[in-house]
Parts: sequence; structure tokens; C-alpha cells
Amino acid sequence: MKIIIVGATGTMGSFLAAAFETEHQVVRVASKGGDIQADITSTTSIESMFKQVGPFDALISTAGPTYVGPWAKMSDKEFRKGIEGKLMGQINLILIGQKYINTKGSFTLITGALTEEPQKNFANASAANGAVEGFVRAAAIELENGIRINAVSPTVIEASPEYFPYFPGEIPTTMRQLEYAFRKSLFGAHTGQIIKTY
Amino acid sequence: MKIIIVGATGTMGSFLAAAFETEHQVVRVASKGGDIQADITSTTSIESMFKQVGPFDALISTAGPTYVGPWAKMSDKEFRKGIEGKLMGQINLILIGQKYINTKGSFTLITGALTEEPQKNFANASAANGAVEGFVRAAAIELENGIRINAVSPTVIEASPEYFPYFPGEIPTTMRQLEYAFRKSLFGAHTGQIIKTY
Repeated sequence: MKIIIVGATGTMGSFLAAAFETEHQVVRVASKGGDIQADITSTTSIESMFKQVGPFDALISTAGPTYVGPWAKMSDKEFRKGIEGKLMGQINLILIGQKYINTKGSFTLITGALTEEPQKNFANASAANGAVEGFVRAAAIELENGIRINAVSPTVIEASPEYFPYFPGEIPTTMRQLEYAFRKSLFGAHTGQIIKTY
Repeated sequence: MKIIIVGATGTMGSFLAAAFETEHQVVRVASKGGDIQADITSTTSIESMFKQVGPFDALISTAGPTYVGPWAKMSDKEFRKGIEGKLMGQINLILIGQKYINTKGSFTLITGALTEEPQKNFANASAANGAVEGFVRAAAIELENGIRINAVSPTVIEASPEYFPYFPGEIPTTMRQLEYAFRKSLFGAHTGQIIKTY
């Protein structure tokens, strides 16, 4: 299976790339580094990435830039980080990528527990996650040729302990849980699902 | 109670304005007509609206422009209608309006069943709704001075029969159900809730 991983140099993406490349062809996409560079806030850059990769069987996105910061400083300007990044960036990967993906291929986006379990400083991520989850359910009934779409929703991940203080009461998602949630989406038959690890 | 209704000339907004003005002071805000004009896609226009209204006790938004149309034609461009309108428009009403609302005031935004019950042609609304719902839950734990925030989520509304064919299997939300969902948000003690009428 040819698998594109967008965000492949990040904590989650690099773990998943290593996990999947033992059995599959992995194409690492990142803003810097990786096999191919792409800026997911640019539709031109996304289109160019898909043209370079060619037909593929699965796309995993772990790319989710959002604004993290105190509510008092949150204005339209800061909010745009998640709108352009985790929200429209991921949605454009689907709107454009559907032209390049193989029949019966799958898309798997990243959201997070913040959709339903908010934490202070993360309202931008809660909004972006909610949008992506609503979109995943809607896209699942629109995509044709057996193409599936799901989202993986972890809570704070074990490999990022610097975030633990911001997620009181959340038992961290292990990297194994994260990997297996993506496995469920890629190798299972689900579509339109939010696969939670918490 | 001084209640701002944004989208006050629309089907939902005009019904709610009539329902609440028998007992409350209602300020009708709309892009055209109403007491005060505002373009919710412009932060400058939103700020100006709040300055004209002055302190208030509740804000209701029924303003939710989104792109409705076939999936095959959906690209970044069309998707921006809901991103700028129902999503950022409503979120900016909160980010800006919190400076003007009275202590113990309330914000009530509009989402819809499409968040969880997608229908063809409405992926943009599913995404915008999901974002607003995630934001509402996050904002509820950030807002201070007893200020509350909720969303009302109707399905296709009874007064818009032209939409019925697009919502197979959905029992329409009556205008009375819609009004009472807003009553629950404004006059109840809830915060961070998605008040569903379906």
C-alpha cells in the first residue's frame, strides 16, 4: 500500500511513518524535510504535492497547527492559525486529494479530544477539531469509488510530556494506541468515523 | 432584558424577535434592514455594531451563511462561505462581544443537526457547525463574570419547506421548538451546551 503521511516530521507523523514503512511504501510529506515539502495552507502547494506523489492508497494527516494561548489574547487574528492550518489545511487535502487517490483508498485526518473535552488555552483547536469531525461525517457520504474517510482523535500524546500540565485529568494516549487507531482507519472498513483513543 | 438578535430579518431571527419583544427589549441586527446593520464577516463591522448597541444582556445569532451545493463543485473557494460566515462570523461575535456584554449575560449561537447527521450538499455547514459547537464548549470554560454561552441545534425548520427535500428522514423543527431552545439558553443556567431540537 502506498501511504502519504502529511506532517511526517512531527512527533506523531514520524512515529507512524516508522511503524508503517516496514510493510508499506510511505511518502513523508512535511513543511520542511521529509520526501516532499508541502504547505497545507496553500492549495497550490497541496496540488503540487499530489502531482509529485502520483496515485496513492491512503493519506494520513497529523498536521494540525492551531493557536494555543490565553483566551484574553484570542482575536480573529490568532484564530486564523487553526482555521488555515488544522481546519482548511486538512479539508483541502481531501477536496484536492480525492482526484488523485486510488479506488477504495482512504483518508485519515487528525482531530483530538479537545472537540468534546475542552481545556483552557485551546479554544482554537476545539473549533478546528469540531469542523474537521463534522466534515469527515459529511465527506463520507459524498466520496465515491469506495473511498473512505475517518478521523483519529487522541488526547494529549504520551510522547509530548511538555503538554501534560495543560491536560489535567487526561490519561495520555500511548503511541501504540495512536498507531492502532490509524490502523483501524486504513485497514478496516469504517468510514465517517471519529476513532477515539480516550 | 436587552437582547441582540443577529440575523433578525431571516426566517428564524424574525420569528424569535417577535417572540421575545413582548417581554424584552430586542435589538434587530441584520446585514440589511433591522435596527442596526452589520456584516458579521467583518470584525470592524461587528465592533461598530456593539458600540452602537451598548451594554446588553443576551445575544442570539441565527446568522449562518454556508455554501450549499454539489460535492463535485466544492473547493476551497466555496468552502470559505461557511468559514467566514457561520464559523468565524459567529465566533467573532463572541470574541468581540464579550467586551460589551453585561455580567451574567449569555451568548447563543446557531448550529444544526448537520454536525452529526450529514446530508448531501451540506458538507460546508457540517464543518461550520462542528467548529461552532467545539468553540462553544471551549468558550464556556474561558468566559468570566458569569457569562454563559450555548448553541441551539435545530434540524431543517418547519418554516422553510423548500429545504425539506434535502433532509430526508428529518422531522422538521417547529418554530415553537426553536423558540423554546433559545429560551432554555437565555433564561436557564446552562453553559457550554448544544441544545438540540431533534
